[in-house]
Amino acid sequence: MTSSNIPESNVDVLVVGAGPAGVFLSLALARAGVSVRVIDKRAAKVAAGQADGIQPRTLEVLQSYGLTKHLIDQGNQMHMAAFYNPGPDGGIKRTGRAPDVTAPSARFPFEITLHQGAIEKIFRDAMKEHGLEVDQPMIPISLEISDDEAELSSSTSYPVKVVLRRLDAEAPPHPSFNGDDPEGATEIVHAKYAVGADGAHSWVRKTLGITMDGESTSYVWGVVDTIPETDFPDIRNRCAIHSTNGSCMVIPREGDTVRLYVQMSEVEVGQEKRLDKSTMGPEKVMDVARASLHPYTISFPNEIQWWTVYIIGQRVASRFSVKNRAFIVGDACHTHSPKAGQGMNASMNDSHNLAWKLVHVLRGWADPSLLRTYEFERRKFAQDLIDFDKKFAALFSGKPRTEENQDGVSHEDFLEAFQTFGGFTSGIGIHYQPSNIVKTSNQALASNLVIGQRLPPQIVLRMADFRPFELQDVIPSDTRFKILIFAGDTRDAAQRARLQALADGLDGPEGFLRRYTPQDGKLDAVFDLVTISHLKEEFTNFIDVPARLRFHWSKVFTDDVSLCGKLGGKVYSSYGISPERGALVVCRPDGYVGMVAALDDFAAVGEYFATFMRAQ
Amino acid sequence: MTSSNIPESNVDVLVVGAGPAGVFLSLALARAGVSVRVIDKRAAKVAAGQADGIQPRTLEVLQSYGLTKHLIDQGNQMHMAAFYNPGPDGGIKRTGRAPDVTAPSARFPFEITLHQGAIEKIFRDAMKEHGLEVDQPMIPISLEISDDEAELSSSTSYPVKVVLRRLDAEAPPHPSFNGDDPEGATEIVHAKYAVGADGAHSWVRKTLGITMDGESTSYVWGVVDTIPETDFPDIRNRCAIHSTNGSCMVIPREGDTVRLYVQMSEVEVGQEKRLDKSTMGPEKVMDVARASLHPYTISFPNEIQWWTVYIIGQRVASRFSVKNRAFIVGDACHTHSPKAGQGMNASMNDSHNLAWKLVHVLRGWADPSLLRTYEFERRKFAQDLIDFDKKFAALFSGKPRTEENQDGVSHEDFLEAFQTFGGFTSGIGIHYQPSNIVKTSNQALASNLVIGQRLPPQIVLRMADFRPFELQDVIPSDTRFKILIFAGDTRDAAQRARLQALADGLDGPEGFLRRYTPQDGKLDAVFDLVTISHLKEEFTNFIDVPARLRFHWSKVFTDDVSLCGKLGGKVYSSYGISPERGALVVCRPDGYVGMVAALDDFAAVGEYFATFMRAQ
Repeated sequence: MTSSNIPESNVDVLVVGAGPAGVFLSLALARAGVSVRVIDKRAAKVAAGQADGIQPRTLEVLQSYGLTKHLIDQGNQMHMAAFYNPGPDGGIKRTGRAPDVTAPSARFPFEITLHQGAIEKIFRDAMKEHGLEVDQPMIPISLEISDDEAELSSSTSYPVKVVLRRLDAEAPPHPSFNGDDPEGATEIVHAKYAVGADGAHSWVRKTLGITMDGESTSYVWGVVDTIPETDFPDIRNRCAIHSTNGSCMVIPREGDTVRLYVQMSEVEVGQEKRLDKSTMGPEKVMDVARASLHPYTISFPNEIQWWTVYIIGQRVASRFSVKNRAFIVGDACHTHSPKAGQGMNASMNDSHNLAWKLVHVLRGWADPSLLRTYEFERRKFAQDLIDFDKKFAALFSGKPRTEENQDGVSHEDFLEAFQTFGGFTSGIGIHYQPSNIVKTSNQALASNLVIGQRLPPQIVLRMADFRPFELQDVIPSDTRFKILIFAGDTRDAAQRARLQALADGLDGPEGFLRRYTPQDGKLDAVFDLVTISHLKEEFTNFIDVPARLRFHWSKVFTDDVSLCGKLGGKVYSSYGISPERGALVVCRPDGYVGMVAALDDFAAVGEYFATFMRAQ
Repeated sequence: MTSSNIPESNVDVLVVGAGPAGVFLSLALARAGVSVRVIDKRAAKVAAGQADGIQPRTLEVLQSYGLTKHLIDQGNQMHMAAFYNPGPDGGIKRTGRAPDVTAPSARFPFEITLHQGAIEKIFRDAMKEHGLEVDQPMIPISLEISDDEAELSSSTSYPVKVVLRRLDAEAPPHPSFNGDDPEGATEIVHAKYAVGADGAHSWVRKTLGITMDGESTSYVWGVVDTIPETDFPDIRNRCAIHSTNGSCMVIPREGDTVRLYVQMSEVEVGQEKRLDKSTMGPEKVMDVARASLHPYTISFPNEIQWWTVYIIGQRVASRFSVKNRAFIVGDACHTHSPKAGQGMNASMNDSHNLAWKLVHVLRGWADPSLLRTYEFERRKFAQDLIDFDKKFAALFSGKPRTEENQDGVSHEDFLEAFQTFGGFTSGIGIHYQPSNIVKTSNQALASNLVIGQRLPPQIVLRMADFRPFELQDVIPSDTRFKILIFAGDTRDAAQRARLQALADGLDGPEGFLRRYTPQDGKLDAVFDLVTISHLKEEFTNFIDVPARLRFHWSKVFTDDVSLCGKLGGKVYSSYGISPERGALVVCRPDGYVGMVAALDDFAAVGEYFATFMRAQ
């Protein structure tokens, strides 16, 4: 076989693996017009089971891509958590309920549960609208990154060479195939960037020589998805059940389906820390569930839709990238317990973090060094996730406190942990550390906005038509930086003068707007400007805002209460921005606050962008 | 041509006309599984212009069919109305703004504007999901209703005979065509019911010999849809502009499009009260707009998307039905001015009112006399509409009050009328008069619910999972009557006993549930039961509600505040239902309150249904 007979092609980004992290990244890139190839070794998409919980922050992120609607239509919402502990009669009793989400600023104060296949389908359907489909079943068989410094630093080179092999023998040969490969199943892809989204046993990670730090635990858990029959009154809530007969977690799912997680204390874990799944069945999981729910009864007359048994690992990859040309995302980076439904969320947020950075570099807007912030931000998050998971899993797996066992885990211990970690488990509290894209000076100008965290939801009124808008919807994930101009009370002459200075500065040749926007494109290609006044309805006229500060009438808002009297009017106060002083807030394309500056200090904003953007 | 050579077919309902009223009715029937044929004389669907405003109540109705989402995605929202009157300098000045919707209980406190073609497409797409498409271009050329009493009273007969003719010569002949009709363009349809939704010049209405009561006015209005360039600050709000240079109404539309209505005071109306449109052009409309907006400037550099000039007619059909077998809906029944965007709304609500009644009769659930309530309810509405329109159009067309003309219409006059009629123009106040489907006894048991009006929106929490639901979404337009069981505080023993009595009564052979539900179908085929307790979250267990009163766990709710603390907890108080006493509220399939009874008085509910339902 000579390589000249194998079909070769170029692509900007090759994504290996079409699980949640892979399809999320592929969709985000395809929507931005990036050329993407995504492959998966599976013959078909997952139909049931697997990861299924979507946190409040992930919902906000999906909303920023316009994808929440489908999830909310199809998924189950978890609003309440119920806690059961040993009762006086040997059975369990409810010791309390608490909101499932402990994150007051969450826009969607619930979790969505839906099987992974349905979630992936939402992305696949959206990908199709951009002409992208998953190429499957197909695996990579080799991956090499060039050592040539010139090639690595070029923006037009394809330094990643990946050989792919199609797995289904019946697939037609590649159109350009002309001989030597008897099955026509091999091809070579030259990519600018390659991303491994190929799961916990990631081939890309191993091939890149990245190790996993941490180790397996001895916790073995079993999972069953089915429609049970039961008189248990919290069967449609998330339940943490600690009984003297075992621990059990209830996760209601779409339709009438329920997922049961149980700790399998009796299972032998071999030296290899691998389970022999063939010696087990879903019956063991159901037996534990039956015993731990006593005195309530639960039976399983319906089909077992999915089940598994697994050992919990708690590990983080030593690196998330190699040569700034190959990256890993999702389970390839971090494995942990399913206790708080973190897996798919961490995975999708890895991709959300990486996508816009790849787009900015591929478009020549940003320096490739921007890509380093992916590992910087997401590896820290993954480590925090494992730390949290260790604490939480230990609490969950511990014996409950009873009369006889006063050292056991009490309801109060568990509830306190559940609520303390609420910001983390909801994803709302994700906080990226200072870097050239998170500049924490001027925090005082927006004292309640946390630079490095996501912009919290707030309702604003669009000035031209008084339609209420969620501000998060005004800053969608469209790859652009959003400059939020908190213009204050623009009837005040001094404030108006500062606003005019800002407009003049932006219009100048050294203003960041012109400096970093390609001259052959639209003026709003890289930056979107959003003005938010602090004016009551009766004083507003959208045409009073300087023309340079409004690309369109729809980009001017005011911080007033909606006409129905129920929404809005709290942006300045909740963000801690003085209406007299105002502020500029820069939101990154992923919705995280990147910096804050004084209203007329366009120079400071320019300095921020100068650290990673390229003058055009 | 012998009739034996012309293809013949049977259909339950033939709908003539695929404007808003026609496609709404066709969709509602098709979703209910009724066999429907819908024809239209137009060759293609409307692409721009025509009616375009959707009121708050119509949005609630569309939501009950799951169609609002598309409208909200595509349409423009009007939240604010602005009023301009002559200013001191000869130009206009803003005399005030007010919410566009004056109906505090509106679930959607705004109007949607979107061109008629896009609205019809939403219905056509939904129809396609049920295998139904509009047959076009096709016209009816004769319509006869049998005089045979036996045939008219039979539920299996097809007493309406309509001959149809296909208009496009190139259409292939009907598959069963076999000779004598040279074009293969004629066919005969035998229908159980025929509905004329064929507009203001309705062929069906004329063929049925129904006259229009009322007359044309001398008001002539011109309309233009375009994207203007202007410094007018309220260009994205509904504006009523009274100037000494003419009156003008601004209606913002989807995207940047604006509709301008102007009164054409100079146009000659001939004796026939018909306009010669060929002598006019959109320029006249734009000239009036330019003049009346002074001192603001407005220019029209973009395409005129649509325009027309018309005389306002204010007429109501003398009858809405013939022999209870043929009906007219929409503009075929009523014509009036466009001032408050009523046309399409009245039309769609005609169809909404008629659809469920046809379904109940066709399924054999209800006596055909139920169909008489269509004319009874909707003709009264149409008359009210014309009365309103006369008052409002006169105010709008009147000269504005100025220094010189103290008898003119003042801002205060106009604003007062605008707000007084708010319940009417929003559609929220539609109130059906007492009949066998609107029984006003026991009003005191739900003192703030108006029997004969729609069930107002309220948030309730689903007991099993504490998910907040809009109660209107719990009673969708699925053709079933909804029995809302306001069960009160079910911890109270007396209340529990009454609830058990209700459950036992419903389960008995004389209970309305078994009496009017076909024995070969599901027990929830005709009636859906929805229980709403008045219990705080910590005391709720959905399995405490008697099994007969919950067809599914998802049908049990409680009147508590949602976990995020922002929604719900006000159903009993806002409906005026005592938690100690409770109540039964019967909602008709169209969402209007039909009757109220004491919590355990299933007999009264049975008596209500006995007046129009058929024992199975």
